[in-house]
Amino acid sequence: MKYVLKVCYDGTSFGGWQIQNNAVTVQQRLEEAFEKAFSQQVNITASGRTDAGVHAAGQVCHFTADLTIPPEKIADALNCFLPKEISVLASAKAPENFDANRSAKRKTYCYNAYFSPRKNPLKDRFSTWVKGDADIQKLRHIATLFIGEHDFIAYMASRSQVKTTVRTIYSIDIEESITYGSKNIKIFVCGNGFLYNMVRTIAGTLIGYAQGRISEEQVKKSLTEKNRNLVGKTMPPNGLTLEDVEYGINLFNG
Amino acid sequence: MKYVLKVCYDGTSFGGWQIQNNAVTVQQRLEEAFEKAFSQQVNITASGRTDAGVHAAGQVCHFTADLTIPPEKIADALNCFLPKEISVLASAKAPENFDANRSAKRKTYCYNAYFSPRKNPLKDRFSTWVKGDADIQKLRHIATLFIGEHDFIAYMASRSQVKTTVRTIYSIDIEESITYGSKNIKIFVCGNGFLYNMVRTIAGTLIGYAQGRISEEQVKKSLTEKNRNLVGKTMPPNGLTLEDVEYGINLFNG
Repeated sequence: MKYVLKVCYDGTSFGGWQIQNNAVTVQQRLEEAFEKAFSQQVNITASGRTDAGVHAAGQVCHFTADLTIPPEKIADALNCFLPKEISVLASAKAPENFDANRSAKRKTYCYNAYFSPRKNPLKDRFSTWVKGDADIQKLRHIATLFIGEHDFIAYMASRSQVKTTVRTIYSIDIEESITYGSKNIKIFVCGNGFLYNMVRTIAGTLIGYAQGRISEEQVKKSLTEKNRNLVGKTMPPNGLTLEDVEYGINLFNG
Repeated sequence: MKYVLKVCYDGTSFGGWQIQNNAVTVQQRLEEAFEKAFSQQVNITASGRTDAGVHAAGQVCHFTADLTIPPEKIADALNCFLPKEISVLASAKAPENFDANRSAKRKTYCYNAYFSPRKNPLKDRFSTWVKGDADIQKLRHIATLFIGEHDFIAYMASRSQVKTTVRTIYSIDIEESITYGSKNIKIFVCGNGFLYNMVRTIAGTLIGYAQGRISEEQVKKSLTEKNRNLVGKTMPPNGLTLEDVEYGINLFNG
């Protein structure tokens, strides 16, 4: 039987989602918890990898196993054996043809940054400190250039290998708030898929423009001339959260 | 010369504010940073102790020293030697009769809780998980009983020693929001001072009432009959943040 999980994690201390030799990963901790809970081994496949230090509010993953426990109770069984940084929010039976990676239609990431003269330890865990200020109207203006289908090769980390670097961004929504006397921004980016480091580099480019270090002309060129030198810096992983993955079906009833 | 600091800290890994033998504390880390930055030892006095695991957005403290650095730059000098969990947000010269503890007129604490069926690691660091739900109208209603001058002896941890257990609460403001699909509440409590564990026990009582475990009659009695058995449980420290300390003067210009 195929099952699907919705997983939330504080990525600070993990080497990302995918199992690797040199670091503890979220996939590893989940598969270990599964073995402890159900005395069997599974391979858990996510909607996509998240990098070291990146968080997830709603990572979706699937596995195949024979379990007698009611599907909605799998979450609680796994949570008994997971470290406090990982929580399974929901579990359900999945359609047999469901694949958390290949069936994904849209993903939404959020990049969080805050603007203040000095660092704030109450914000640093899930948000990146930026010195100075950023004009929210400028951020919203420049974000519109990214909407639609583009070749995002300039926004991809050089070491990645993919078939195509063309991706579609459906929306970029920017929210602003003030807490503890400093400005926070949330940059929600929704698309059909993302290249390695793409959201973090888009965030760096938007902020670079809003702070006057990058021109509008430069941003426009970065989407046509495919030149990595035109884009902003790749922002640190702690500010990035995988918010949501959509499949066009209701996976978790209620 | 007397100086004042505004300090922010993520209290998760500290044994509270005050120097002690068995744990690393915020005061210790600040005094160590001071010695590294200025090659002299000082005693740093805070507005009040915060307990192990409690956070501060705006702890205020003072010290006396002879420094040649411009007062507003002391913050940056200390931040060079502080761990990432502590940040000095501002520094200034203080009036010679200023005392961070004795001059304090009002303090505001915030208790953060979230309501969901399962734990959320993106919220746990600064907010306490409560199963089930809470009616915000009921919370606001019961909070009004605490406003004014009362003997809060029933809300004090038994081991504390104080001259008087009478305190004045000026306001309790409750904010509600939804993030990651679950409800968050912020309970801001402003008063002229607080007994040991008082805010955490008030929070537990408000939530106990909103969840139907404690009656209005019981809460009323807890403020007149001084019986600790009438009050709710003391909530965990991770949800508590010292927000602000007011002195009736502008300590940090701008």
